[in-house]
Amino acid sequence: MYNFVFQNTTKVYFGPNQLSHLGEELKQFGKRVLLTYGGGTIKKIGLYDKVMDELKKADLTVFELSGIEPNPRHTTVNKGRDICKKEKIDVLLAVGGGSTIDCTKLIAAATFYDGDSWDLVTHKAPVTKALPVCTILTLAATGSEMNSGAVISNIQTNEKYGLIHPLLQPKVSFLDPTNTYSVSAYQTACGSADILSHVFDVFYFNKAEKMDMVERVMEDVIKTVIKYAPIAIKEPTNYQARANLMWASSWALNGFLQTGGEFHAPCHAMEHELSAFYDITHGLGLAILTPRWMEYILDESNVSQFKKFGINVFGIDPKLPDMEIARKAISSLSDFLFNKLGLKSTLSEVGIDDKNFKIMAHKACRGGVLSGYKPLTEEDVEKIYRMCL
Amino acid sequence: MYNFVFQNTTKVYFGPNQLSHLGEELKQFGKRVLLTYGGGTIKKIGLYDKVMDELKKADLTVFELSGIEPNPRHTTVNKGRDICKKEKIDVLLAVGGGSTIDCTKLIAAATFYDGDSWDLVTHKAPVTKALPVCTILTLAATGSEMNSGAVISNIQTNEKYGLIHPLLQPKVSFLDPTNTYSVSAYQTACGSADILSHVFDVFYFNKAEKMDMVERVMEDVIKTVIKYAPIAIKEPTNYQARANLMWASSWALNGFLQTGGEFHAPCHAMEHELSAFYDITHGLGLAILTPRWMEYILDESNVSQFKKFGINVFGIDPKLPDMEIARKAISSLSDFLFNKLGLKSTLSEVGIDDKNFKIMAHKACRGGVLSGYKPLTEEDVEKIYRMCL
Repeated sequence: MYNFVFQNTTKVYFGPNQLSHLGEELKQFGKRVLLTYGGGTIKKIGLYDKVMDELKKADLTVFELSGIEPNPRHTTVNKGRDICKKEKIDVLLAVGGGSTIDCTKLIAAATFYDGDSWDLVTHKAPVTKALPVCTILTLAATGSEMNSGAVISNIQTNEKYGLIHPLLQPKVSFLDPTNTYSVSAYQTACGSADILSHVFDVFYFNKAEKMDMVERVMEDVIKTVIKYAPIAIKEPTNYQARANLMWASSWALNGFLQTGGEFHAPCHAMEHELSAFYDITHGLGLAILTPRWMEYILDESNVSQFKKFGINVFGIDPKLPDMEIARKAISSLSDFLFNKLGLKSTLSEVGIDDKNFKIMAHKACRGGVLSGYKPLTEEDVEKIYRMCL
Repeated sequence: MYNFVFQNTTKVYFGPNQLSHLGEELKQFGKRVLLTYGGGTIKKIGLYDKVMDELKKADLTVFELSGIEPNPRHTTVNKGRDICKKEKIDVLLAVGGGSTIDCTKLIAAATFYDGDSWDLVTHKAPVTKALPVCTILTLAATGSEMNSGAVISNIQTNEKYGLIHPLLQPKVSFLDPTNTYSVSAYQTACGSADILSHVFDVFYFNKAEKMDMVERVMEDVIKTVIKYAPIAIKEPTNYQARANLMWASSWALNGFLQTGGEFHAPCHAMEHELSAFYDITHGLGLAILTPRWMEYILDESNVSQFKKFGINVFGIDPKLPDMEIARKAISSLSDFLFNKLGLKSTLSEVGIDDKNFKIMAHKACRGGVLSGYKPLTEEDVEKIYRMCL
């Protein structure tokens, strides 16, 4: 019956030349800003200087945390938390992709918790309060700029967990597609695979109730990525392509596509183990896993959804037998990910063997079977990992 | 370059059996509630009793304003404003369709203004503050449940104006499709025409920049209405149909479809004069005007958009000449509105002659030409009214 609650409070400034609003937006939360970013790309593309200019103009006091990792670590969260406490930070400004934003969200919450930030991720301690977070997005991928989730890794324990809490929702996000012009072909491909996976994994291929209109929008998001990711790879400064990918990333996981039922994400659960054990790029892990997972779960009970996918997204001839359409749809997706986007198609190619599959499968299923069309047991998960070799 | 700001803070409870959250949501704003509604339909369908039960359970003090008109009047706003001031109301709860919600939004703002509420509508006085507004929607049509607009009529001056202000955004809206089961075939048709018009008039057929992904969503909203409105008319208790129409109404005008450029609404400007002079149902006025307006503005400079509409929405053969596709698209829309939805197709049929066309055209263009693909002068507007006879 589509029983759901929708709310998304993030204010989005979309497009170039919106940074003039940065100062006024941050100021409403206070004077002391912690600027967070990753490896320094934002300096290379000139964004750091632009941001600093705006912060200076607004007469804000700026502190910095740089070096946030892809697959950001709880130890980095702790570091940021210490700065926030010591410097009495009023507001956080994350400039980067999903990793930087996720890490910053956790810092915002960890500032009000005295123990190890990992306790918040593992629900040992509840999120009770959080500093306001604003973001400037530099990669179309995770949707973190417009949702209340964050994924953090603990490399000591080989764990990577997600946390969802309304207090983690960014207050204001600046989405300027030109800030993604310098994103490499590889990272563009990984980000695109991530966007697709949110739609497939969380919304489109599971038992959750889908409202017809919203299911069409899911297909729009998928088709947007399929159309524009190859263009962005070929023409990195194609504004149309970068803009469509960026807005698709936000809408793939900002709540709108959920119209009932539970929240499933079996591929994400499986991928988090890959990243936790091997620190591989999230989107690449998802790309390798997704078509295998689809092959594994496809059966007579869910073929109609795969058929719909094949016809509506890839334009496969609806007169073919259902199972053939479904298989063609999955191979079309593989072709897109591994040929059109040029991503590596197996775990072996990225240097991962079957050594840890058993323990990874065990950890992926720590909360019980992974729900979805076909509930996945540890044995299922291990089999899917093997299909990726 | 798609420069836009998107924010929509309304919390939506979608689906049946969500009313148990009503008390907790209202309570966060205070104890004294003004319940507003229209002609009493909410009593007939049992919703009034359910709402009162919840308010009682939450120990709230309830005042009432009933009898809000379709095309709600500023005098009713003043009446509501007086109750809010006298009874020290903390929060407003609008139970009804767009008219009730719009009127309630204006009451919320007028409570902080001592003069005539019409001054707020005409921008003689600014909106400075507003009471929080929550809504329970009973008609899929205007989108007011999830946006910051309100349209109010002054029958003394034959004027009907819209006001948009962030303070008018509902805090919480309850969208239960089963509350629209009793909506008549006629009102379902008018509401559906209203939803369509928001997409056509404001977003799809104008010079505003359209992001590809979002334009596909516009077409989804249109196709949702075309698919489900006739089903809802034939089977008033078809949940799928009512749910899709309801969510379509919210998303047609909640900000998501706007990705740049200006906000145009020429058909709405023309319709507001029809309603102001003749108090006709908004959706019916829009239905009669829209295909004529399309015929009037169609030319070589914009035929590609009409062609896209014809192919993507009505599946018209893309191999036909562009102008033929465009004309077929417009006649398909007329067929939908006047045959499938059964709406009257001319102004004459609803008892309107050309007596006031000149003055209506003059008033519609009070702010200058109506912008859009083809800027419309007073003469153009009068011609379009005549095409509707």
